[in-house]
Amino acid sequence: MANHGNLFGSGCAGSGEHEGMYPLASSSTLTMAGSMTQPPPARIGDSLSSVDTPALVLDLDAFEHNVVAMAARVHATGLALRPHAKSHKCPEVARRQVDAGAVGVCCQKVSEAEAMVRGGIEDVLVTNEIVGRAKLVRLARLAGRARVAVLADDAANVADLEAAAAGEGARLEVLVEVDVGALRCGVAPGASALALARRIAASPSLSFAGLHAYHGPAQHLRSTEERHAAIARAAAQVKTTRELIQASGLACPTVTGAGTGTFLHEAASGAWTELQPGSYVFMDADYARNEIDSRWPRFEHSLFVLATVMSRPAADRAVVDAGLKASSVDSGMPLAWRRAGLEYVTASDEHGVLRIAAGAQAPALGEKLLLVPGHCDPTVNLHDWFVCMRKGRVEELWPITARGAVW
Amino acid sequence: MANHGNLFGSGCAGSGEHEGMYPLASSSTLTMAGSMTQPPPARIGDSLSSVDTPALVLDLDAFEHNVVAMAARVHATGLALRPHAKSHKCPEVARRQVDAGAVGVCCQKVSEAEAMVRGGIEDVLVTNEIVGRAKLVRLARLAGRARVAVLADDAANVADLEAAAAGEGARLEVLVEVDVGALRCGVAPGASALALARRIAASPSLSFAGLHAYHGPAQHLRSTEERHAAIARAAAQVKTTRELIQASGLACPTVTGAGTGTFLHEAASGAWTELQPGSYVFMDADYARNEIDSRWPRFEHSLFVLATVMSRPAADRAVVDAGLKASSVDSGMPLAWRRAGLEYVTASDEHGVLRIAAGAQAPALGEKLLLVPGHCDPTVNLHDWFVCMRKGRVEELWPITARGAVW
Repeated sequence: MANHGNLFGSGCAGSGEHEGMYPLASSSTLTMAGSMTQPPPARIGDSLSSVDTPALVLDLDAFEHNVVAMAARVHATGLALRPHAKSHKCPEVARRQVDAGAVGVCCQKVSEAEAMVRGGIEDVLVTNEIVGRAKLVRLARLAGRARVAVLADDAANVADLEAAAAGEGARLEVLVEVDVGALRCGVAPGASALALARRIAASPSLSFAGLHAYHGPAQHLRSTEERHAAIARAAAQVKTTRELIQASGLACPTVTGAGTGTFLHEAASGAWTELQPGSYVFMDADYARNEIDSRWPRFEHSLFVLATVMSRPAADRAVVDAGLKASSVDSGMPLAWRRAGLEYVTASDEHGVLRIAAGAQAPALGEKLLLVPGHCDPTVNLHDWFVCMRKGRVEELWPITARGAVW
Repeated sequence: MANHGNLFGSGCAGSGEHEGMYPLASSSTLTMAGSMTQPPPARIGDSLSSVDTPALVLDLDAFEHNVVAMAARVHATGLALRPHAKSHKCPEVARRQVDAGAVGVCCQKVSEAEAMVRGGIEDVLVTNEIVGRAKLVRLARLAGRARVAVLADDAANVADLEAAAAGEGARLEVLVEVDVGALRCGVAPGASALALARRIAASPSLSFAGLHAYHGPAQHLRSTEERHAAIARAAAQVKTTRELIQASGLACPTVTGAGTGTFLHEAASGAWTELQPGSYVFMDADYARNEIDSRWPRFEHSLFVLATVMSRPAADRAVVDAGLKASSVDSGMPLAWRRAGLEYVTASDEHGVLRIAAGAQAPALGEKLLLVPGHCDPTVNLHDWFVCMRKGRVEELWPITARGAVW
């Protein structure tokens, strides 16, 4: 393995020369090879059985129910709703969330935010630290086209944000990310957060917009009590930090966070002003394993991977054409929807092996099955299109324009 | 959850009307939203430190070493080499494999095969059962543009293949898939395989081309002895089946299979005529865990995910911008390349958390790190471009044109 020492090379000439402008490769290469965008697997009006597979299928009735149910529930709390677009990566979905009352969306990446703004969304919070000059220039440019806010957890990064905003003549809103138990990014609650807030507020090209406090691991604690306890601990830290900042004379207009698994706990705590749930529009097998009580809205499974049975090699085994390149398995296997006795037990790259229980209705070769993905966000990122169904027909085809927008 | 009953609808009108022709969605939708193809994260001549992240980086020296080493080793066995393109999904890679002596490539999907033929590959084996009329029509059409072969494990599917080929005036080569221990697709060795071979050979629009016998799980058995034993059992089944077919008067020109973990065992058994390794061009963290002895070529890690340190929230923690939407974790976490004491411990959608051991060189905020993916195939499928590096510079940008071609 002698070759790798020079992957980073010896010099840095050329570094930074081209930021923000990545032209396509030579047109001859692309013409020969074709685009990486895949055509949609269906046509408007098709029946579900005519949709080619694997395909990402959206049940519009269930989806619209989820959009409205979340908007109504959050409206009743008096807090702002800013759904996370990392779940759907699709401006068509974002527009429907805004139409239902959301103030805007969250994104995780600058490229994702660019796709949302291109798709007509006018208020985007990048719930992430953005590091690197090329990305910061793009972020600052985007702030000229839409309301854009971003997180910070480091003073050096704040200086880079400041320089990028100043260079583009933009003004960026910056929130301090506080680590309330996720052990990922973020400064510690209290004095560290205050120091960073002051640094941001002192900048001529930045505005201190508040705090970001998101407890990711709490979303998937199974019992309501566990989730409540985790968010109660987080809320105490958020309140202390907010009070410290306000006592210093700084306004702290926004405290944003929460997810589909916990949002009512954040709302009830009084510490947050804005909620960021994302997965509720689709629900997935993992979120469906959470226990909920009667206070919680019922979100429906609206997202499915449609798969074809491509082999029936044994009485107790069916193989479908959707493996881990069609449905992410990081949070468990997909579930066969409304097919008792069919269990998706093994995923390889392009195959899913289903075990057929004794006495279960066995699927025929060529039959199409709906699978509930184990984890909706990375599953959506594998596909180019939502095939939107209503009353058994393809009603719309929505391009997932931020698919692969991971930078 | 009352809405879902009608997802499949009541009627089937429209089913099959439009097969093989999927036009883009309305141009207004796409123009508004933009293409799903992401721009390349670098420009020719850039240094690695200028490449935007996360990016899929190919070390051309290591890659070319792997291509040549495999071609030479298989050439020495006297068998044909047909590398699997499901690993790279890139005609540029396939062309280099063919230039080094491969007879063609394998694909898993019709859309993947189409991308390869569009990219100039003239001989493609689809190592999979293809089910459904739309896919079969496309497969038969492709056979008019290149040599195309496909697998079967079911007589009803053979009838559909026959009809599709006849409908397009094409002749398809069909191999019988035999299950030699993978417990996925395939007929049982022996009489079942013979019966299906006869059915294929009797068809006016199909040719019986031989047997496909691939033992996927054996690739990842850790000891050479375990892998040898699994392939020895498979070889005995393949030989019995081939002899049965030949004794019936049918020729069985090709027996194809094997992977990066076992190919020398298949070669030494005398049962196979053609080898299908794929991962050797890149290697990944999972394959690197296999023990090998001195007979095996040394394949190098040529594929990396380049990531940026986006947060340094604690002395023992760094967070990078490459999570499970940038590097697949189905076979384990990515490894930090040549950074002793850095361990990638947790992947969330857009973040990777690295633990920094006491005394290790801690990465700085903004520093770029190379990660070795846990599993190369699904990781490649997350990206649009290979950023090809040599001597510290971007030498080429290769589009991954079969990215997302999962149908």
